[in-house]
Amino acid sequence: MEWDTTEPVPGLSKHRLEAIIDGVYAIAMTLAVLNLSITELPPGTEATTLGPALIAIWPQVLHFAIAFLTLGAFWVGLHRQFFYIRWVDRRFIWFSLLNLLFISLIPFSSSLAGDFSGTSIAIQVFALNMLLIGATMALGWRYASRDHRLIDPDLPPSVVLFSYRKSLVIPFLSVLVMAVSIVLPYFAMLLFLLFPLAHRFLTLLHGDEAHA
Amino acid sequence: MEWDTTEPVPGLSKHRLEAIIDGVYAIAMTLAVLNLSITELPPGTEATTLGPALIAIWPQVLHFAIAFLTLGAFWVGLHRQFFYIRWVDRRFIWFSLLNLLFISLIPFSSSLAGDFSGTSIAIQVFALNMLLIGATMALGWRYASRDHRLIDPDLPPSVVLFSYRKSLVIPFLSVLVMAVSIVLPYFAMLLFLLFPLAHRFLTLLHGDEAHA
Amino acid sequence: MEWDTTEPVPGLSKHRLEAIIDGVYAIAMTLAVLNLSITELPPGTEATTLGPALIAIWPQVLHFAIAFLTLGAFWVGLHRQFFYIRWVDRRFIWFSLLNLLFISLIPFSSSLAGDFSGTSIAIQVFALNMLLIGATMALGWRYASRDHRLIDPDLPPSVVLFSYRKSLVIPFLSVLVMAVSIVLPYFAMLLFLLFPLAHRFLTLLHGDEAHA
Amino acid sequence: MEWDTTEPVPGLSKHRLEAIIDGVYAIAMTLAVLNLSITELPPGTEATTLGPALIAIWPQVLHFAIAFLTLGAFWVGLHRQFFYIRWVDRRFIWFSLLNLLFISLIPFSSSLAGDFSGTSIAIQVFALNMLLIGATMALGWRYASRDHRLIDPDLPPSVVLFSYRKSLVIPFLSVLVMAVSIVLPYFAMLLFLLFPLAHRFLTLLHGDEAHA
Repeated sequence: MEWDTTEPVPGLSKHRLEAIIDGVYAIAMTLAVLNLSITELPPGTEATTLGPALIAIWPQVLHFAIAFLTLGAFWVGLHRQFFYIRWVDRRFIWFSLLNLLFISLIPFSSSLAGDFSGTSIAIQVFALNMLLIGATMALGWRYASRDHRLIDPDLPPSVVLFSYRKSLVIPFLSVLVMAVSIVLPYFAMLLFLLFPLAHRFLTLLHGDEAHA
Repeated sequence: MEWDTTEPVPGLSKHRLEAIIDGVYAIAMTLAVLNLSITELPPGTEATTLGPALIAIWPQVLHFAIAFLTLGAFWVGLHRQFFYIRWVDRRFIWFSLLNLLFISLIPFSSSLAGDFSGTSIAIQVFALNMLLIGATMALGWRYASRDHRLIDPDLPPSVVLFSYRKSLVIPFLSVLVMAVSIVLPYFAMLLFLLFPLAHRFLTLLHGDEAHA
Repeated sequence: MEWDTTEPVPGLSKHRLEAIIDGVYAIAMTLAVLNLSITELPPGTEATTLGPALIAIWPQVLHFAIAFLTLGAFWVGLHRQFFYIRWVDRRFIWFSLLNLLFISLIPFSSSLAGDFSGTSIAIQVFALNMLLIGATMALGWRYASRDHRLIDPDLPPSVVLFSYRKSLVIPFLSVLVMAVSIVLPYFAMLLFLLFPLAHRFLTLLHGDEAHA
Repeated sequence: MEWDTTEPVPGLSKHRLEAIIDGVYAIAMTLAVLNLSITELPPGTEATTLGPALIAIWPQVLHFAIAFLTLGAFWVGLHRQFFYIRWVDRRFIWFSLLNLLFISLIPFSSSLAGDFSGTSIAIQVFALNMLLIGATMALGWRYASRDHRLIDPDLPPSVVLFSYRKSLVIPFLSVLVMAVSIVLPYFAMLLFLLFPLAHRFLTLLHGDEAHA
């Protein structure tokens, strides 16, 4: 009579879980914008002062965009997973909630990376956040797909492996960013924008079978 | 010709109510992150200064995580309730809106507990907030399940009781936290993380019948 | 060949409109909490200082709760309307978007009323905001129900009138609050909490026919 | 064995995409309200001081309303597009995510335009933001409708063209605002409110065939 965390949770269909996931992603993607401000200038400032002030917050805008697009990539990947998942159990829900916990930290870590864009430790906190998002997502997929626990029994192993490898792209880039930030803090963040290339590489590697 | 608050509200299916609940939970879980910031440091701060500043906000991050996971536990519990609920009436909707009122206060009370992590009164405000969330949820379930008012007439009493007891887990922990915070303010908050153990205990107590 | 704003908008089913309404309501209800803070106190403040500071923000908490519950009443009323509405046209969508514009101002006006709780002008701004929410809702219903434009042709006139009168409850209370705030600013806001009584009165007036 | 970004993404139905779009629009429309505040006044301020302070933030309120209503117009237009779209592929999802990236910048750019309402550069940043939202939307539609890639094969070319032209209304107004703001910064923003007129003109131009 153990605590069976692998039973499906009554009332928690995968669609309910998708609703809270979409909500938290949408909020986290949007909330970071609140850190963009130049309120230190008094209203009535002239263009000659406002122009340079706008240029000065360029790093924050760039980091906001990188965070937004990387979250977008996670969101696309997560829904790909949910396409294959048939039902959810209590443990998978908690993998998802852990994923959302790290998602909701992005407005903090991305503004940190934007405010201190030349400081390697700030970049590393942001990259660590991305690493944890990716890790919970990869572990969730591993849990769901092992022995076809929560997925279609007929899903070919090549698709399972392809999805698993795709979920490791951003964690891999995160480690790369953390390493590069030690020597090139201003440049490191841009490496996140390589994720479409990494996806392309994986697709080439797997070929047509990935879409069987 | 009384005001019959127990009639189903036209147009307010349980699914509409679930939508606003999911929205408020997602926002409340994410909004507390805005209280994490180290803006007092000037941009261009070096790593030697930023490192200690990040360590200094560790209590805030911990309290954010505790609030996020506890709200997650409430959300899982609320959807378990909604699985059994067949329709909603006006009174049940107001139980839910009261629940959401206290949910929406969490960004305030959790950042209070994070900012003043060694002060027992701050912990008690947070625990009182959790207590009120749990109480409105337990009362809502009691209202919905009494005489099978809003639930399936065939739902066995053991499942009703099991759900009711589960809804009392966090209120019970809240009282415990409030008491312990008087002597051990730094430690008390961590007691909220015991909720998986409490759930396990309840599941052991109820056994298989709970999932009938 | 006029601009026919009364045609149904392709792709804008009433369900899409409900989704953006639920989103804006959930955010507006939750966002006002950001105005609750006692950040002027340094971390490490002792309980003897924090206690009085918490009591001092009591007006803000009360105004937050009044705003939350009044928005909740609007939300219940709006969904009652949507239950009867069969399809939406362009003009009705813009009535709804105007309603949402005033909904989204509530975090501003409610925190104004909370910060300056003894100042009649602050109460009046909040009540004016509520009046505008109610007015756009009542006008939307009038537009939708006239000649059964967007509603079921079989809906009895008594239900149409009942819904219309219910949508005027909070506008009526808003005018009352604005008047009373001139002489009793601290007390006026509490009048919003009379809306359940006003609903009860209307239900008594209409009797069973309202639920035909 | 190329990377086929035009394949439909498994699990990313157009409904999932609509959910994240509705979420980000609702949040961006609401979040800008946080920039409305008169916190510099101490609590307990008298009406004689609060009145002028409220009048002083009038430009911010106006810019908030313009931003809200223009986003509303985009939202209506986007859903018109989604009515015609049958399925989505990876590239279209990224057009949508780029659109959302610029949507999520609106709370920043609209409060900039409100805070520095007499400064042409602030108006231009806001108008550029609107231009980028409109451009990603127009490009998305062009991509979706070319060779009826993602839309119903039977959709008449006149409807495709009508939708395309409608998506260019706000970009066109944005360029107009940017030009006018050089000479009349206070007045330029109001030009955004011409969009209903521009829509009417387009509808007259296309006539009945647009609704075939």
